[in-house]
Amino acid sequence: MEFTLKEIADRVGGEVSGDDRTRITGINSLELASEGEISFFTGSPRYKKQVLQTKASALLVSHLLESFSGSQVIVPNPSLAYAGVASLFARPVARHPGISDRAFIAQSAVVGENVSVYPFVYVGEKAQIGDDAVLYPGVFVGDRARVGNRTTLFPNVTVMNDCLIGNEVIIHAGCVIGADGFGFVRDGSKNIKIPQLGMVQIDDRVEIGANSCVDRAALGRTWIRSGVKTDNLVQIAHNVVIGEDSVIVAQAAIGGSVRVGRQVVIGGQAAIGDHLNIADHVMIGSQAGVPKSIPEGQVVSGTPAIPHRLWLKTSSLVARLPEFFARIRGLEQKLSHLENISKNR
Amino acid sequence: MEFTLKEIADRVGGEVSGDDRTRITGINSLELASEGEISFFTGSPRYKKQVLQTKASALLVSHLLESFSGSQVIVPNPSLAYAGVASLFARPVARHPGISDRAFIAQSAVVGENVSVYPFVYVGEKAQIGDDAVLYPGVFVGDRARVGNRTTLFPNVTVMNDCLIGNEVIIHAGCVIGADGFGFVRDGSKNIKIPQLGMVQIDDRVEIGANSCVDRAALGRTWIRSGVKTDNLVQIAHNVVIGEDSVIVAQAAIGGSVRVGRQVVIGGQAAIGDHLNIADHVMIGSQAGVPKSIPEGQVVSGTPAIPHRLWLKTSSLVARLPEFFARIRGLEQKLSHLENISKNR
Amino acid sequence: MEFTLKEIADRVGGEVSGDDRTRITGINSLELASEGEISFFTGSPRYKKQVLQTKASALLVSHLLESFSGSQVIVPNPSLAYAGVASLFARPVARHPGISDRAFIAQSAVVGENVSVYPFVYVGEKAQIGDDAVLYPGVFVGDRARVGNRTTLFPNVTVMNDCLIGNEVIIHAGCVIGADGFGFVRDGSKNIKIPQLGMVQIDDRVEIGANSCVDRAALGRTWIRSGVKTDNLVQIAHNVVIGEDSVIVAQAAIGGSVRVGRQVVIGGQAAIGDHLNIADHVMIGSQAGVPKSIPEGQVVSGTPAIPHRLWLKTSSLVARLPEFFARIRGLEQKLSHLENISKNR
Repeated sequence: MEFTLKEIADRVGGEVSGDDRTRITGINSLELASEGEISFFTGSPRYKKQVLQTKASALLVSHLLESFSGSQVIVPNPSLAYAGVASLFARPVARHPGISDRAFIAQSAVVGENVSVYPFVYVGEKAQIGDDAVLYPGVFVGDRARVGNRTTLFPNVTVMNDCLIGNEVIIHAGCVIGADGFGFVRDGSKNIKIPQLGMVQIDDRVEIGANSCVDRAALGRTWIRSGVKTDNLVQIAHNVVIGEDSVIVAQAAIGGSVRVGRQVVIGGQAAIGDHLNIADHVMIGSQAGVPKSIPEGQVVSGTPAIPHRLWLKTSSLVARLPEFFARIRGLEQKLSHLENISKNR
Repeated sequence: MEFTLKEIADRVGGEVSGDDRTRITGINSLELASEGEISFFTGSPRYKKQVLQTKASALLVSHLLESFSGSQVIVPNPSLAYAGVASLFARPVARHPGISDRAFIAQSAVVGENVSVYPFVYVGEKAQIGDDAVLYPGVFVGDRARVGNRTTLFPNVTVMNDCLIGNEVIIHAGCVIGADGFGFVRDGSKNIKIPQLGMVQIDDRVEIGANSCVDRAALGRTWIRSGVKTDNLVQIAHNVVIGEDSVIVAQAAIGGSVRVGRQVVIGGQAAIGDHLNIADHVMIGSQAGVPKSIPEGQVVSGTPAIPHRLWLKTSSLVARLPEFFARIRGLEQKLSHLENISKNR
Repeated sequence: MEFTLKEIADRVGGEVSGDDRTRITGINSLELASEGEISFFTGSPRYKKQVLQTKASALLVSHLLESFSGSQVIVPNPSLAYAGVASLFARPVARHPGISDRAFIAQSAVVGENVSVYPFVYVGEKAQIGDDAVLYPGVFVGDRARVGNRTTLFPNVTVMNDCLIGNEVIIHAGCVIGADGFGFVRDGSKNIKIPQLGMVQIDDRVEIGANSCVDRAALGRTWIRSGVKTDNLVQIAHNVVIGEDSVIVAQAAIGGSVRVGRQVVIGGQAAIGDHLNIADHVMIGSQAGVPKSIPEGQVVSGTPAIPHRLWLKTSSLVARLPEFFARIRGLEQKLSHLENISKNR
């Protein structure tokens, strides 16, 4: 694949400084780019030195760089432009031609047009598969489940019965959508299972990272709203609602019946307790443990989570506890000395 | 499906207040219930308002509610009654009729009566599958492994060779039972693998959450005793023993050779170090890090774990460290001032 | 299987004290060993009592034990000797004879000699499978991916397109190698996907624990160097490099573009932030949260991570915060009293 620099600039709404007929054969990092490739510079000081050393033939930049002698494409947001140019060079998702005769599709299932079903896929009774969907080997789609148009289920993804997956959704390998929520009630010493009668609804343009789990609701639905992106190994419990365009980093866990707002960012390995409300635009730091609801726009860290700035301060003070302890001891000794003087006077 | 309120009350040992011939078509939450459905109220203040607004035709309650005008079923434990009524309305686990000719069953394997084996299941040499077991697509049962009666293995579950799964066990999708324990010994700079010669034994009525891992023992067995329930993405290392009816919440990790007692509750993302003993009825908070054994009945939290009440106190004091620091500084200044006065006197 | 004690001693470079013709039928722990089996004692006080009670016929020891009456094999490192003897008794990995006709191998794939491919394996276009490799049911090998010689992929492992797996690699069940890295860029309220154009390279003798994820690079490669061992449910993000012979314990997470040196040990549930450099021989404690790069040989713990010894000290002081607080209050009262005296004088 090859594009001229002009074609690339047009694609990302940028302006070329230099020869716009330069032929570009790929995109790469500053470090790895070779001649003929384009790279990008976001302005981060971390990469300033690499601009001097890169072999890239062109750069996506926000301002003209004197430190780079090749062609430059000036764009408002080099990261966004990088995503756009990368999509020019990306291979499309590989498709099995049509429906493999080694797949199992129940007779009552409804399969759309131009669907790609690899070998060893199972589609259950009355399930629906939308147009242009791609189902990789080992995918299981349970009875009455629905998979939308242009949605991709990567290898060994499980979608249990009655779950609804929207359009243009990407579910990475090994995910489990719609396993039973963790609902038990104690009867004496025994744990009695609460049957999980609900389902999972995943809206359009959601992407779920590999080996993540989204549990079906006890009653009603667990709901991942449009544009949500999760990283790998994420746990989303029963009856959770995740608002539009929120982002969940690897290994985070969202407790049962939690409502997460829009454009929330949940850091890696963070945990949110059951039944809480996380309002829009909240940011939760990595490894934070959230024991109570968080109002709109707050940034929190730590376990239990506190405002991020306070957490930064307390974290550095915790490391100074030995010193504080010594200072308290010093104060006690001096004070006791003073008290003696005072008594003897 | 439809039951009279009398049938429902009989099922859960409750007493009807109102018309016991009311026909009930389903169970739902207070919020989601529509006419004809029953709901439940556990007494939690969180849901008091919803009792006033619910459209449910009947409620499971522990005491007669004046705030609800429909029929009521008085039971000792509404949560338990909810579980019982939900099981009336739950769909049975879907079964493939018989053994699919697209499954692979080794010739020496022994398969019980009335077994449901979906396509793309693999059952190894000398493996045994009990009566009424259900094996979903993508299930792997290794050589000589045994799966008990009425046990369900959901899609893409792996049970490695020689592992024993009891009766009425539920293993959710994507679990790995009997992968090698993490055993290595350093030889100079190299990590030499310690072959993991043992297996995993899972007793009756255990339920394992999706994408969880239970490693085989180095020697002997890793043993999950009857009635244990784990949530998703849980890690159980080699040679662990989990006592009867214990509960492990999502993403918790139990280190090698740990013994966990009966009716222990291990919170989400908690971690227990190798070789420890967690006695009966212990409760371990979410995200706790347990570096030493815990005696019977203790409740702990934090990393390193300390008694839960102490942790609550220290957590709130940590947030006040900036204030303490300022107070220490203030004390030092005042004291130094007093010392000067004292010297000059 | 059966070996004489002499054969065992020769295998591990040890010296027999006692009858070297003793026939040994297995290896087991001190606790579980029965007559005819060999066990081992590493010197740990935890097992001293078990030496007195074991029924083992022989022991691997570093020094002759008076407390044991059976035969002994004196070796420099009993743990290492245990690994060696266990490998004598270990079953070889079970192999399907040849390539199952229920597997799907693309016509353009290249498959080596003496390969074992179980039913329900998918191997994509132009993929290469090395000699003596074993692919269990449910394994997916994407287009152009390569699997080395004597490498084992356990059930339901996914290796996405273009990834390279070296020789003598073991990937446990349910792992996902080469799913997309978590790369998004905000465009207003929307998260725009950054296509992940790179791949994963896993070098020789690596072992990856069950249900772990190694993401493909955004550009270039994510690189797991030779001899690395990971436990289960580990997350390795895009563009990470893990140095030779490093060890990663269960549920740890390595952020994007992190460079980890050689022989590093990363504890369970630890998390390393994006773009950091973890130098050779570093040790990171369980559940640690690492927000900045760590120089060679350091041992760190806590969130945010600090030197391990300091963390031990601060952890114990945190538990004493209620006492400190009381002492500060006491100091303030006494000081105020003294000030009053001083004023009134």
